[in-house]
Amino acid sequence: MKNPGVVALGGGHGLYASLSALRRVTDRLTAVVTVADDGGSSGRLRRELGVLPPGDLRMALAALCGDDQWGRTWSEVVQHRFRSQGDLHEHAVGNLLIVALWELLGDTVEGLDWVGRLLGAQGRVLPMSTVPLDIVADVLGVDPDRPLEITRVRGQVECASTSGKVQSVSLVPEGPPASPEAVEAVYEADWVVFGPGSWFTSVLPHLKVPELHRALVETRARRVVALNLAPQPGETDDFSQQAHLDVLHAHAPDLRVDVVLADAGVVEDHEALGKSAQRLGGELLLADVAMRDGSPRHDPALLAQAFVQIFASGA
Amino acid sequence: MKNPGVVALGGGHGLYASLSALRRVTDRLTAVVTVADDGGSSGRLRRELGVLPPGDLRMALAALCGDDQWGRTWSEVVQHRFRSQGDLHEHAVGNLLIVALWELLGDTVEGLDWVGRLLGAQGRVLPMSTVPLDIVADVLGVDPDRPLEITRVRGQVECASTSGKVQSVSLVPEGPPASPEAVEAVYEADWVVFGPGSWFTSVLPHLKVPELHRALVETRARRVVALNLAPQPGETDDFSQQAHLDVLHAHAPDLRVDVVLADAGVVEDHEALGKSAQRLGGELLLADVAMRDGSPRHDPALLAQAFVQIFASGA
Repeated sequence: MKNPGVVALGGGHGLYASLSALRRVTDRLTAVVTVADDGGSSGRLRRELGVLPPGDLRMALAALCGDDQWGRTWSEVVQHRFRSQGDLHEHAVGNLLIVALWELLGDTVEGLDWVGRLLGAQGRVLPMSTVPLDIVADVLGVDPDRPLEITRVRGQVECASTSGKVQSVSLVPEGPPASPEAVEAVYEADWVVFGPGSWFTSVLPHLKVPELHRALVETRARRVVALNLAPQPGETDDFSQQAHLDVLHAHAPDLRVDVVLADAGVVEDHEALGKSAQRLGGELLLADVAMRDGSPRHDPALLAQAFVQIFASGA
Repeated sequence: MKNPGVVALGGGHGLYASLSALRRVTDRLTAVVTVADDGGSSGRLRRELGVLPPGDLRMALAALCGDDQWGRTWSEVVQHRFRSQGDLHEHAVGNLLIVALWELLGDTVEGLDWVGRLLGAQGRVLPMSTVPLDIVADVLGVDPDRPLEITRVRGQVECASTSGKVQSVSLVPEGPPASPEAVEAVYEADWVVFGPGSWFTSVLPHLKVPELHRALVETRARRVVALNLAPQPGETDDFSQQAHLDVLHAHAPDLRVDVVLADAGVVEDHEALGKSAQRLGGELLLADVAMRDGSPRHDPALLAQAFVQIFASGA
């Protein structure tokens, strides 16, 4: 399939990686982004101004910036962070710009579209919900002296850095409203891509937004799960790649997956992972998608090649 | 003269008014802007990040924004101020954007040119000096019990709001370096426009930058002084229009002026003002340039008409 309509779900650095690859494959690209960050610049902005946390949206927009001097310069500007002893320390310029557009235009999606036009973005960035969210996780063994006790942990930062084992996530407020444009994009897509990214705090939360969950289950689009290259310290310590698929299934038992993409070099138990993929209705594709310097990051060009191969299978 | 090269000197709302008029008359327009603000968002930024105060530069750029939806929207964005109980309160978005570009590019003029391109600005905005400045004023009768005592007052905010009578201004550091691009623009201009604006804190400081003073005296450009419509509470309380010209002369005895523009409706002593203009080597032009609602603001269209008439005289 040439130039497929693709929706990429996620947040943070994982989504930046998938978008950096997908932009090489299609220009019909929509990112649907978590809005649950409560740390850093985004956390301060949502508390001070009562807005959606803009950080993951900003990073997704930067990933889609135009490939000329204009796009690259403005992308660097929106990603720039102030460093000082004062009030502005750590604020990302793009976060401030996005929030200003929201205040001025009174419309979240319109504001993001304006920043997209500034960057010459190749694609569109949408929030998964119209309201700021908090992630709540049920975590096993937070207290090492009580390894079997489940503790409820609140906030993306807390959940992502917990010393226990995350079992499941939910959202506060429960059953939040989806962004209508995001729901529409999922229904109209040819392909939907889950991950890579922080599994519990960036990838699974989308399934806890009811209208988005329904759209992801009902859409005629085919579904890819792009697995992480390494467990994430904190939220997915000691997690096997199968375990990632198993918690995805637990959070959305009705969700069918077509392809599971994993890096050939990091899969330990090929057979077990293949079986986990089959349980979701999909087949496993192994490809070299990691950076060749050995760091646990996706190489955009290699990941793009893998997506080309996957999308060709749905032609 | 069609499409003359014009340099407008000033800062704040006065410069915004002259630029709003001049942009209708020429597209070869350069604003040379005071960088001595120490209050509000600009004052906090120069203290926190050690940069030039960006506020007057931002306002000049906004005045030059493109006349389409793109230009107008980004102009509103850069002029937008956050309102909160927190760290961002009162910060203007454009100030943050300008400072981010300075930090990223390491070049003041290049950073301003990028914001100009964002806005589709019709003209160029330059700082009068490459270093942040403080204005120091000698003020008569700050203490009402000692009406003949001269007090030295420091800082633009203090000088502009003093209860005494400002006699003269100087800069700290003394004899600061001019922006080379600003000096070049003055030498290459067909016309230089002083004012309107806060006389002591926005219009006269340019003459205290040695290379800029020399350029303003030596340039083959003709010189216009656009007088204010009303005295400014604080710095020019009780100041007649003649007094404005007299302090200009006192700050730059070697400066020759070609035209003094004043609003026909606010001149009290036509003859005295004409004589003050002659003392500077110029002639007085009276025109209706004030808003018709009676507020002491320049009407951009009327002020533009007056400039057309003036520039035609130098054809």
